This record gives sequence, structure tokens and C-alpha cells, in this order.
Amino acid sequence: MKKPLILVTNDDGITAPGIRTLIDVMKELGDVVVVAPDSPQSGMGHAITINDALYCDPVQLKASEDHQEYSCSGTPADCVKLATQEIMKRKPDLCVSGINHGSNSSINVIYSGTMSAAVEAGTEGIPAIGFSLLDYSLNADFKPTKKFVKAITQKVLEEGLPKGVVLNVNLPKLSEDDIKGVKICRQAKAHWVENFDKRTNPQGRDYYWLTGEFINEDQGEDTDEWALANGYVSVVPVQFDLTAHHVVQDLNSWGLNKVS
Amino acid sequence: MKKPLILVTNDDGITAPGIRTLIDVMKELGDVVVVAPDSPQSGMGHAITINDALYCDPVQLKASEDHQEYSCSGTPADCVKLATQEIMKRKPDLCVSGINHGSNSSINVIYSGTMSAAVEAGTEGIPAIGFSLLDYSLNADFKPTKKFVKAITQKVLEEGLPKGVVLNVNLPKLSEDDIKGVKICRQAKAHWVENFDKRTNPQGRDYYWLTGEFINEDQGEDTDEWALANGYVSVVPVQFDLTAHHVVQDLNSWGLNKVS
Repeated sequence: MKKPLILVTNDDGITAPGIRTLIDVMKELGDVVVVAPDSPQSGMGHAITINDALYCDPVQLKASEDHQEYSCSGTPADCVKLATQEIMKRKPDLCVSGINHGSNSSINVIYSGTMSAAVEAGTEGIPAIGFSLLDYSLNADFKPTKKFVKAITQKVLEEGLPKGVVLNVNLPKLSEDDIKGVKICRQAKAHWVENFDKRTNPQGRDYYWLTGEFINEDQGEDTDEWALANGYVSVVPVQFDLTAHHVVQDLNSWGLNKVS
Repeated sequence: MKKPLILVTNDDGITAPGIRTLIDVMKELGDVVVVAPDSPQSGMGHAITINDALYCDPVQLKASEDHQEYSCSGTPADCVKLATQEIMKRKPDLCVSGINHGSNSSINVIYSGTMSAAVEAGTEGIPAIGFSLLDYSLNADFKPTKKFVKAITQKVLEEGLPKGVVLNVNLPKLSEDDIKGVKICRQAKAHWVENFDKRTNPQGRDYYWLTGEFINEDQGEDTDEWALANGYVSVVPVQFDLTAHHVVQDLNSWGLNKVS
């Protein structure tokens, strides 16, 4: 069998430990090309760069590495666009993003640069997975994730993914022995309640730091939050057809078609 | 009846003509508070500002205006968070975003700062609508949009919106007489094929401008693209539960639960 061509990206930047773990695992499974942001892009959502020029330069972060790596001035979504249209010689068989330093479970998926890269690849018809570890620390231990990242990726390479679907994989901050296994989940219903930290700068002008509290309203045992809290790796299939199809019928009873 | 409290924001920035039109219409319907970015944020997706301080200052752009306006250094999603947690005395009854200079139909919803503000409000339990006009020009004529923006907003104030759903409204670039009416639609299946414009800077370093071609693969006559191409205002109900529920069953046959 031909070796699969795998695009690796992330949102924490090309020097983050998480992407190094992901590259190591992917090199066991295929030919790897890395196109990742030159600086951290956390919280960038599905941002793309319209009003700025994009730089994208080859780099070699480890002398021993033989795969290609590129450092890009843009967002995770920009990286995928540049990789597939400019850098890679053929369409990749898979795009993986991460391993993110911190959770992208439940509602965090909409703020996530990690997942935006996977979704961008998905819109281009490339099977894609975003991986995140529930540990924000730069010194997070990614070793326990390797077995699960490899098994899930292998399955996607074997089975493919349905059209219009990418995977959002979150891994608990546990030792390999303490991780109980993998669960297919739905996104928990949750939201953030912001708690802005208001300060005054030396010039007397007020400013804010965004902080907040995560509120999980969802008591279902089929959610990603439940899986993670109970020691499982969560796998949520994510779609980018955002239409709330179940509401179309109801809105059609509003009589808006009579406005003219 | 108590006048509804309406939060107005956008992604083109507080000085854009589109938000001025939206403010004018909303003042006919309720009490208005404006919290909008101090500079254009197009293509920002659902970005939030984590690693920078946020400024948010009262401004009065027109001496004749009696409502409150705030100019914010952050993204559209930041504006909504700041408005609801720090600036507004009570939870708004509605959040409207726009009117965007340019389309946010079909797959553009995922890149859209306009829609990210609406989605952010939706996650906080606030009914929300994003409005966009299919005209990128700064001199776009927003007058023909007013009647439709008002009618749709009135309906949402009367009927409310289902939990977890916000509206994505796009308006064709037509005179009021030529707009045929309003259609409830689903998001068309479409994607962008990038066509990077590669240049070399005066120092000899290559850079890229992101350009691309929009490909609508969807021939359905129930899509937003069809409605807009045929002279209708499109209304798509948008959800932020991104779970591809129809895939959960299939993924559960992969045997990933045996990885441990």
C-alpha cells in the first residue's frame, strides 16, 4: 500500500511540544508535511487572513528530521489553505491538528483554532482530526496520548470519514494506565460565563482581561464532558453544515414570505 | 409592552455604514446599545482575545444620537462578551450583528465575524441575528435592506427563537422593488478554492495574498445560494451544536472502545 500523505498543523505554534508529539506519531503512519503557525493562535476560531500578507517559510527545527516543515505567519485555517494549494504536491490523505495544549471539548469547539484547521481541511474534502489534551501547561506530558492518537488516526485512514464530518478528539490529563478507553460522544451543552478582570493602565485608561467560568449544563452520559470527567478519550464527529434543519419547518410558519 | 433592549454589533467596525443602518432600524424597535470593534474584523471567525488586554470606551459618533455606543479593541465575539457581562445593565432581549459589507451565505458562515457575534450571543441564551448584504463596497446602498431587516427582527422579537439557534440573514444586492421576498433556507454545500497571489517583498522574501474562487456544489433550490441568486433574502437557522449526530452510530462500530 502507498504510504498516506499527512498534513500536520496546530494552533499553539510550530514550536509547541504538542505538535512535536503529533508529528512523531504521524511519522509512524505516513509521509508527513508540517505547515503550522509561527506563533500561538489560541482562541482564533475560524479566522482567516484577508487584509495582511502571509509569509510561509521552510524551517528545520531538528537537524535529524527528514520531513518538510513550514512556519506560517497566518492562522491555523490559513496554514491548511496554504499547505493544500501552494506547498503540497498532491492533496493530502489526512490532516491532523494539535495536539492542543488545553481542552476543545463541548462549546470550546467554536473558539478553537485547532478544530478550525480540521474543519478547513474538511471543507476541502480531506479527512481531518483535531486532537487536544486537557492540560494547558507548556510542560504537559503528551506521552500517554500517543497510543490513542495512533489508534484513532489508523482507523480514520482505514475507514475514511463521512463527507462533511471531521473528528474532535479530546484526551484526559491522565497516565496511560488510568485512561479507561475511547468513547464516541456528542458535544455537551455548555457555555462560558465571563468574568472580566478590569484594570487601569499607567495612563489612566481602563482595560480588561478576558477570564471566565465554564458551565456544563448537560447531565447526559453520552457527552464529551462526561467521557473526559470519567477518564475516557472523547471523540465527537463535527459537521460544518450549521443549518438547524429541525427549525426550517417552524420558521416557514412565520409568514416572512409575505414581506415584499 | 416594555421596549426590548437590543445589543448591536458587527465585524466591519463601529464606523462602517452597515452598522449605522442597523442601528437606525433597531431604534424603531427598541432601546439600543452598540458595542462594536474599533477596526475591521472581517474573516475573524469565532476568534476571542486571550493574550491581549481589551479596551472598550464610550464613543459618540453622531452628536444627535442619544443611545450608548462603545468602541472595543477586540473581536466581534469579544464585543458580545464585554457587552453582556460588563456594559449592559441587564441581559439584552436581542443581539443583532451587521449589516455586513459582503456575503456570509453558505460555507462563509464559518469564517464570519458577523455570525460569530450572533453565535456568541446564542450561546449565552440571547436570541440573535446576523445580517449581511451581498455588496463588499464601502458605499453599498443599505436602504433596500431596511424593510426586510425590520420585518425579520420584529418576528424574532415576537416569536423568539428555539434554544441553540440563531439566524443567518443574507440580502441580495438589489433595489427594494427587485427583492422578491424572504426565503427560509438551508446552508448550501460550497467551498473555496484558494488561488494565492505569490509576490516577493523588497527584501527578497516571498509572501502571499489569500484570494480564491467560491464553488457552489449544491443545486438544491432550498439553499441560501439559490435564494440569493434568484432575488430573495435568505434566512438560515444556524446551530452551534456541531455534533454530526447521524455519524455517532457508525463510529461506534469502529471498535475504538477496545483501545486501552
